[in-house]
Amino acid sequence: MTNAITKAEINGGAVRVIFDDGRETAYHFLWLRDNCPRGLHPQTRERVFDLLSVGDDVAPIRIAADANALSVWWDGEDAPSVFSAEWLRANAYDGQSLSERRILPTLWGAKDLPAPPRFSFAAVKNGAALPWLLALRDYGLTIIDEAPPRTDAVREAAHLIAPLRRTNFGEEFEVRSKPDPNNVAYTALDLQAHTDLPNREMPPGVQFLHCLANGATGGESVFADGFRIAAEMRETDAAAFALLCDTPLPFRFHDGECDLRFYAPTIALDRHGDFFQIRHHLALTAPLDIDFAKTPAVYRALRAFAALARDSRFALDLRLAPGEIAVFNNRRILHGRRAFDPSSGARHLQGCYVDWDETLSRIRVLERGE
Amino acid sequence: MTNAITKAEINGGAVRVIFDDGRETAYHFLWLRDNCPRGLHPQTRERVFDLLSVGDDVAPIRIAADANALSVWWDGEDAPSVFSAEWLRANAYDGQSLSERRILPTLWGAKDLPAPPRFSFAAVKNGAALPWLLALRDYGLTIIDEAPPRTDAVREAAHLIAPLRRTNFGEEFEVRSKPDPNNVAYTALDLQAHTDLPNREMPPGVQFLHCLANGATGGESVFADGFRIAAEMRETDAAAFALLCDTPLPFRFHDGECDLRFYAPTIALDRHGDFFQIRHHLALTAPLDIDFAKTPAVYRALRAFAALARDSRFALDLRLAPGEIAVFNNRRILHGRRAFDPSSGARHLQGCYVDWDETLSRIRVLERGE
Repeated sequence: MTNAITKAEINGGAVRVIFDDGRETAYHFLWLRDNCPRGLHPQTRERVFDLLSVGDDVAPIRIAADANALSVWWDGEDAPSVFSAEWLRANAYDGQSLSERRILPTLWGAKDLPAPPRFSFAAVKNGAALPWLLALRDYGLTIIDEAPPRTDAVREAAHLIAPLRRTNFGEEFEVRSKPDPNNVAYTALDLQAHTDLPNREMPPGVQFLHCLANGATGGESVFADGFRIAAEMRETDAAAFALLCDTPLPFRFHDGECDLRFYAPTIALDRHGDFFQIRHHLALTAPLDIDFAKTPAVYRALRAFAALARDSRFALDLRLAPGEIAVFNNRRILHGRRAFDPSSGARHLQGCYVDWDETLSRIRVLERGE
Repeated sequence: MTNAITKAEINGGAVRVIFDDGRETAYHFLWLRDNCPRGLHPQTRERVFDLLSVGDDVAPIRIAADANALSVWWDGEDAPSVFSAEWLRANAYDGQSLSERRILPTLWGAKDLPAPPRFSFAAVKNGAALPWLLALRDYGLTIIDEAPPRTDAVREAAHLIAPLRRTNFGEEFEVRSKPDPNNVAYTALDLQAHTDLPNREMPPGVQFLHCLANGATGGESVFADGFRIAAEMRETDAAAFALLCDTPLPFRFHDGECDLRFYAPTIALDRHGDFFQIRHHLALTAPLDIDFAKTPAVYRALRAFAALARDSRFALDLRLAPGEIAVFNNRRILHGRRAFDPSSGARHLQGCYVDWDETLSRIRVLERGE
């Protein structure tokens, strides 16, 4: 349903448009010239109009509007720029319109989400991927169940979003106790809740963990909403929260093949100040090389964050069963596991990653067909 | 060559260490306990010590030092934490030590770098990759020449760094004029200097462009150092520079398969305030949906940046010849090409990408063997 244009008029250096629901918004002259649909390549839809081909003071010689479109004529150009009401409304940049387009995550503690949203492997493969992906976007954690006990099932599920994000651990990785491990995940040790690969400039956005066997004693999984933990900290210890937002920490993973390092804060916010990304992995935090005077306060904040991540108010305990694939936002959801006894039975998870921007792209493409 | 320890003493909540060249530095008690080598997994080198297993007030009961090592004893622990002088010096976090570890790029204009550093394909394949990678890190632009005229040569060169970064355009991409293009690069049109894929959360770090044919009229390449342009702007128009650092702009690429969007500023600085990343591609800049009041000033700043990118003081003209592979930091170097006439001859570049953090990792691994 599109809002119709009620009125359009020149107002200062902009065209003011009023829609039939009362929304008043405005578009600067240069913005309109820059976004003229005639300036887009007909096949690629990329802009071929050259922004430097007009002056800062470009201005219409005439405008006209009806319910469905705004037309703007420019000096020296025969054809007007014609903008549909639908496009103008979708791209309005007044404060209210910008705010309406924010998509906020649903934060959760252990009590709010006693069980993650579940979807069957067959359903997501056969046309019902969108509800699964929306749950992944909003809650950060989902379970795909009834997955076939094949080692390519996890890749099949991931391909519903995009090609795999390859890392130094390969395209797929096998989480089980191994001799000569290069990663603590590949031992039987306890793993405190963390986000994977914080030492990469862009840690993988979505992690898939397909449970192929979980017969060992121990080995329960733990998931916690890092955004919820950050929100708790913002409320109870604003100074610590600010430090974790503002202090890039060093992360590092190195083995015989690589030495991958990156500096980033524990908590990253987006342009609206909404939660964007959590990086938390004490095992891969390199020796802090931040401002000397700040170091004690940063340690206190980091310890407070780590303590919240283990708090039963936030940590969801879950024993993955064969056939289940945990699919979660690796830059939001902290995951861990209890130690297990590899002599008591087999434990084998198969994992892979895809990127977060590809996930949002897949949602947009699937929504086109709605 | 390692600096020896001259003296170590407890000073406030830290151990103060003096090295034989006079450097005085200090390490907080908790920092020392957190980084005790006994707390690292013997195989993975990841930290298994639990930061929450000690209190904020952890303190040594005794320390001792000789030229080569510092030993620290903790209450209730039999064995001391032993830190080598070399490791302590490499991880010192006083202001001077932090500053010494910064690696700054060499900024260049057209006059400073009349020709990019060149390396032969055979040399980089046969053990001389490090000088090439250091030139890539420092200048952002290199040429590999005498590459074989095979379509897998570009992949071979990229694999000296890491596996390819796959994008929505595939693992490799063919830059030539195509029917039904989904990207202006795949036409014969003029391409203003830009960085690729600014619409991705993390644009590819290194771009490889292997010239297989360049017999058409036109089609000259242009390269410009985006860091140099940003430095120019910082000096001549500090307000515009600040706006381009602080204003995330919307970028978008969409076709039948994807709708990939991301917000990021034109200029990104790292934790030291040094240049980190440039995103500039007017063709993929989505309709600006930033604060209404700021929009005119942001347009002015963006136009000023675009004008500098075309300025002959900064733009290096280069006609790629068959057998040459341009290898450049895609998040620093703006690249473009003049329009060409596809009826006048063949023009065919083959491209691929690898990530920047993998590039720095490869440099570190190669430097181990020095």
